[in-house]
Amino acid sequence: MRLAVLGAGAVGGSVAELAAEYGHEVVALADSSSAVVADPASATETGTGVDTTAALTRKADGSDLGPAAPEDALAANYDVLVEATPTTLGDAQPGFDHVATALDRDRHVVLANKGPVAERYAEVRAREADSAGEVLFEATVGGAIPILSTVADLGADRVDAVRGVLNGTANFVLSRMAAEGLDYDHVLAEAQDLGVAEADPSFDVEGTDAALKCVILANRLAEADAEGVDDLAEQTTSLDEATVEGIAGLPGNALELAAEDGQTVRLIGEATRDAVRVGPRLVPEHGTLAVSGTRNIVEVETDHAGRLAISGRGAGGDATASAVLSDVGRLPEPSR
Amino acid sequence: MRLAVLGAGAVGGSVAELAAEYGHEVVALADSSSAVVADPASATETGTGVDTTAALTRKADGSDLGPAAPEDALAANYDVLVEATPTTLGDAQPGFDHVATALDRDRHVVLANKGPVAERYAEVRAREADSAGEVLFEATVGGAIPILSTVADLGADRVDAVRGVLNGTANFVLSRMAAEGLDYDHVLAEAQDLGVAEADPSFDVEGTDAALKCVILANRLAEADAEGVDDLAEQTTSLDEATVEGIAGLPGNALELAAEDGQTVRLIGEATRDAVRVGPRLVPEHGTLAVSGTRNIVEVETDHAGRLAISGRGAGGDATASAVLSDVGRLPEPSR
Repeated sequence: MRLAVLGAGAVGGSVAELAAEYGHEVVALADSSSAVVADPASATETGTGVDTTAALTRKADGSDLGPAAPEDALAANYDVLVEATPTTLGDAQPGFDHVATALDRDRHVVLANKGPVAERYAEVRAREADSAGEVLFEATVGGAIPILSTVADLGADRVDAVRGVLNGTANFVLSRMAAEGLDYDHVLAEAQDLGVAEADPSFDVEGTDAALKCVILANRLAEADAEGVDDLAEQTTSLDEATVEGIAGLPGNALELAAEDGQTVRLIGEATRDAVRVGPRLVPEHGTLAVSGTRNIVEVETDHAGRLAISGRGAGGDATASAVLSDVGRLPEPSR
Repeated sequence: MRLAVLGAGAVGGSVAELAAEYGHEVVALADSSSAVVADPASATETGTGVDTTAALTRKADGSDLGPAAPEDALAANYDVLVEATPTTLGDAQPGFDHVATALDRDRHVVLANKGPVAERYAEVRAREADSAGEVLFEATVGGAIPILSTVADLGADRVDAVRGVLNGTANFVLSRMAAEGLDYDHVLAEAQDLGVAEADPSFDVEGTDAALKCVILANRLAEADAEGVDDLAEQTTSLDEATVEGIAGLPGNALELAAEDGQTVRLIGEATRDAVRVGPRLVPEHGTLAVSGTRNIVEVETDHAGRLAISGRGAGGDATASAVLSDVGRLPEPSR
């Protein structure tokens, strides 16, 4: 497949670098200020994509990715648009417009950006229904963990709920606090030094990131019951409707009290067809959900298969890029 | 899809009972002594399959499933043959012949019986290559855990190794021995009372069952590198080539010594492209692989997605039947 990659951060950059290994070709790579785009004539032949390593090296050196404008990437001759720009809330722009443009051109879209499917799920599906392109978004939930494809494989109608640890930063903070008896501010500062937490950690520690992932999961489950795209708009949920509590300022003695009882605290997100809840919860200290460090885990409640648990790397460029590239591999070759 | 179910034990019976809920119809159900087969004329219309509940009730009452002979089920007008007869070693008969007959008729096959894909993998694939039918076998490894579809989804060529706890009986014995400080013979007798272990537990406690599952996984991984079915015959491995050690007679003090060091013992199977090893191993007491009771877990080593772990019910009629019915859902509708 010919890929246009929007976003050249950890995920977009890693998709661009790994694409060839998965048998794909990058014909455009853009960040917010520039792009490198293959010659449209030559890009129809294999091996004539852009030199992504050279472009990413230029970016790392403080230069532009290439001589083109970001919007040129969106107009390139690609089969699949990989949308890996930062997640934005509310109208999910400019990610949503990127998705819409690709679908209008009957191209596939693979999302790493959570915005369009967390904030405008039904609109994305409605536009997909009018397009020859398809939209996949495994990388938006749980990084390398194939949670959406497992739900699809089991049949979303056979899944009652999905819950788990979906934010590695919050989990790192909680597992360090419990293991070392350190207080929240100390561990957060340590996480920032290690690059595990952002300078502004609020998106992670206030539960927003986990909640967006749960909203996507809830919408995926609701879709199994929806009859058509109009009904889907009624069934979908949003961040506004989610009950979200973070871990910011959690007192260290909460973890000590939990430990006295063989328990610990984790930031648990839960998605059902009609509700999303995220908050710190008591879980058994050595139980399934008490993963350590930045690892993520999800439990899937099924009707006849019992409870499945899947854990893995919830973030990181290569891990998330592998989810993007698995999605690319699931898409049908274009008939053009 | 129209299903013929061979085997009316826990798995076959559960497939027969759950099929309608998954949108399928059972047109034949057989055990080793009798069968019930729908009228071939009426079975082309939905809702005219066999009454599986009545047939299974007759069997439970000590009567025949129905008036037909077992071989009549194999000749029925089905789309998918579900092979759920007991696993046999060596020539994997009569399971292998059942598979061959269905493929000769261009019908799909879904296996719960490990024999054909553990003992005659390349032959099954060679016959599949000559047929319009496909063969799937998710239920043969790890019960409800979607391990083979996860490997397929990641790309078998991106998976370096699969390891884990693949026998619930052995795991029940080891986790009870560790938790209660009881000796092997005592816990085994308890497991037999509970129906967790068979009267003859050797297949489970000597590691054979876990080894067969690992042989299937190793063959699935080797297939990614094989060039055509002739080469596949060179690449596949077999139970004879596996290194297998069981847990029979494991001294209780092995578990005590492990616990002093924060470890425990689990029967771990490991499959790579060219080797299968099964044996009792020290694992961290609260680590990923130390699942309790009859639960199974597999870890998948990938090239770019790190290590994924999936746990769930490794056995049981409904759990294994759900894996069979997920496979049925993956098959293309027949073009007839």
